[in-house]
Amino acid sequence: MIGPEEYADRIARATAAMQDRSIDCLALSAGSDLTYLCGYDAMPLERITLLVIGTYGPPTLVVPELEAPRLEMPDGLVELRAWRDGEDMIKVVAAELRRACPPAPIIAVSERMWAGTLLSVQDAFRHARFVPAGRVMEPLRVVKSPVELDMLQAAAAAVDRVVSAYSDVEWVGRTEADVAREISGLLRDAGHARVNFVIVASGPNAASPHHTAGARVIEPGDAIVVDVGGTLGGYCSDITRVVCVGEPGGDVARAYGNLRAAQEAAVAHVHPGVSAESVDAVARAGLAETGWGDAFIHRTGHGIGMDEHEAPYIVAGNNSPLETGMCFSIEPGIYVPGVFGLRLEDIVAVTDEGVEPLNTAAHDLIHV
Amino acid sequence: MIGPEEYADRIARATAAMQDRSIDCLALSAGSDLTYLCGYDAMPLERITLLVIGTYGPPTLVVPELEAPRLEMPDGLVELRAWRDGEDMIKVVAAELRRACPPAPIIAVSERMWAGTLLSVQDAFRHARFVPAGRVMEPLRVVKSPVELDMLQAAAAAVDRVVSAYSDVEWVGRTEADVAREISGLLRDAGHARVNFVIVASGPNAASPHHTAGARVIEPGDAIVVDVGGTLGGYCSDITRVVCVGEPGGDVARAYGNLRAAQEAAVAHVHPGVSAESVDAVARAGLAETGWGDAFIHRTGHGIGMDEHEAPYIVAGNNSPLETGMCFSIEPGIYVPGVFGLRLEDIVAVTDEGVEPLNTAAHDLIHV
Repeated sequence: MIGPEEYADRIARATAAMQDRSIDCLALSAGSDLTYLCGYDAMPLERITLLVIGTYGPPTLVVPELEAPRLEMPDGLVELRAWRDGEDMIKVVAAELRRACPPAPIIAVSERMWAGTLLSVQDAFRHARFVPAGRVMEPLRVVKSPVELDMLQAAAAAVDRVVSAYSDVEWVGRTEADVAREISGLLRDAGHARVNFVIVASGPNAASPHHTAGARVIEPGDAIVVDVGGTLGGYCSDITRVVCVGEPGGDVARAYGNLRAAQEAAVAHVHPGVSAESVDAVARAGLAETGWGDAFIHRTGHGIGMDEHEAPYIVAGNNSPLETGMCFSIEPGIYVPGVFGLRLEDIVAVTDEGVEPLNTAAHDLIHV
Repeated sequence: MIGPEEYADRIARATAAMQDRSIDCLALSAGSDLTYLCGYDAMPLERITLLVIGTYGPPTLVVPELEAPRLEMPDGLVELRAWRDGEDMIKVVAAELRRACPPAPIIAVSERMWAGTLLSVQDAFRHARFVPAGRVMEPLRVVKSPVELDMLQAAAAAVDRVVSAYSDVEWVGRTEADVAREISGLLRDAGHARVNFVIVASGPNAASPHHTAGARVIEPGDAIVVDVGGTLGGYCSDITRVVCVGEPGGDVARAYGNLRAAQEAAVAHVHPGVSAESVDAVARAGLAETGWGDAFIHRTGHGIGMDEHEAPYIVAGNNSPLETGMCFSIEPGIYVPGVFGLRLEDIVAVTDEGVEPLNTAAHDLIHV
């Protein structure tokens, strides 16, 4: 659990980061940045919730009156400004921003604020310049604290238990959608408060990395990409393993051996100071050497924390150095349209010594 | 099912609406506006998907390469521009917008595009002016076509079946969260592809309109607000009924009678030509007359369609006239902090003759 002092400390660090970057105000709508700073998991609705941390006055949470009873946060952390249906919420927000800011301020807004809201606020406050809040929040959130690492570890352990139950699932003769629904239940049974996605991509469907589990009936000989994730204690899990119904034919076994070697080499490459893109390059080189370069059509990974996808992205072009405490996925894949698909994914944490995989489920194909 | 001609017609109508409003380009990211125009249900990810309908050239869908296998839309409806991880997606988007637009264009962007994306696109295309896409899309979507009305009717019928199963649910002695999970299963069993929310707010918790089902154990005497919704065939359901464990004490029975009368009066007021806010006013007056005015702390309703909440909003300040084919909720409530809460909600459609409730579940308290 994150305690009241931790939230106060986070707000203090965000305030310091704003000052370093000459940002006058943070304006955070419903989403993980807001939750990170004050603990409140606001609903993403057309009714705006906005945490305003400005130059003047205490941090203030603008909140729809009907949401006020749901507020859970440390006493005294923020002031409340409730607004009622029928009020002009953009006027309420603009007034709050003006109160908190010097003239012609630079205001950093949530990356996932609705564009419609941003356009209205830009119209209502024309002397302000708006920038993405990631400039302030990403440096704070990209390195996980010991408590956060514990929470990500707990989420990873929970999803590892789900993987260990795959052997007991009935696969053959059921639709992907039916199996996906059972796995959603397993994620909840393992403690996840929310299921974020369950990809069950069987046989040729696995060549689509984000395939939606559908009406295809699983058959003997299928290799099935099973990529699942949820939220537990506010932090996300994410793991991909391949389930095989009997012995897969064609190139599957050889390709999986190549994929596993590439994934494990990329994991082993992780150390503080190496660039994010160098981890991607190691995975990519491993697959290129074994003839699968063109079949690996996405980046190697994404950061994970309160969001399923967040910084750091393990992708060509991201030359930021890895730091101790960063957590991300390493998930290369091989996709052969119309034939098969494979992906192997673990979440890893960067440590002073190098790397610690948070998932510990075996890397073998899961034969059922 | 929506056929290929219907999508082509929707794009033609959107294009005409753009011209009427002097908008040079529509830029729609993942979300219901995009699905409405081309049928594709894109994932809301940090990797951008963008439908560009401009002044020049055919409609073009910018899509992450790894999502391309998921595309489902009529042949020839749009051109594709796939981009690969590692490319600068903002450059791809800006180039596509420049290609499609005259100099210094007005570009209408999705209301729910991520603000971080909008800020980057604004930076990359400084001679453009950005406005919300609702100006084009809302007039198209607010009036449902006969096919859409059928789909909303099917979603309402499904959720009515869920309500009819409440009598068979074990309520007493279980936590709200446990009951909510069972009801999620009922929504899926009734055909919903997605569960959007399940509010189970028991006893004093029901005074919080959007209470998160939690650890409270349901007791004899509780009045429980049960507000559930999901998506079926791409259209949303939403219904609220009150479950009572035995006879509720205190003011609950009287308050519910007053609430029911106010809700039914608001439904009866619905006709083409009356304003949205007048429906809100009827519900509000009914509760004020019976002493509950201050206890009704939210608007009376929201439109529903591909989104759970969309135009028209049934709220003070919205003086737009209702039109045949509009669909929305009518859901007044009574909230007494620390004591109890009640809400009664149906989805209704405006007809030439007046109104047709899509939900037909009885309005009585559900005694268990």
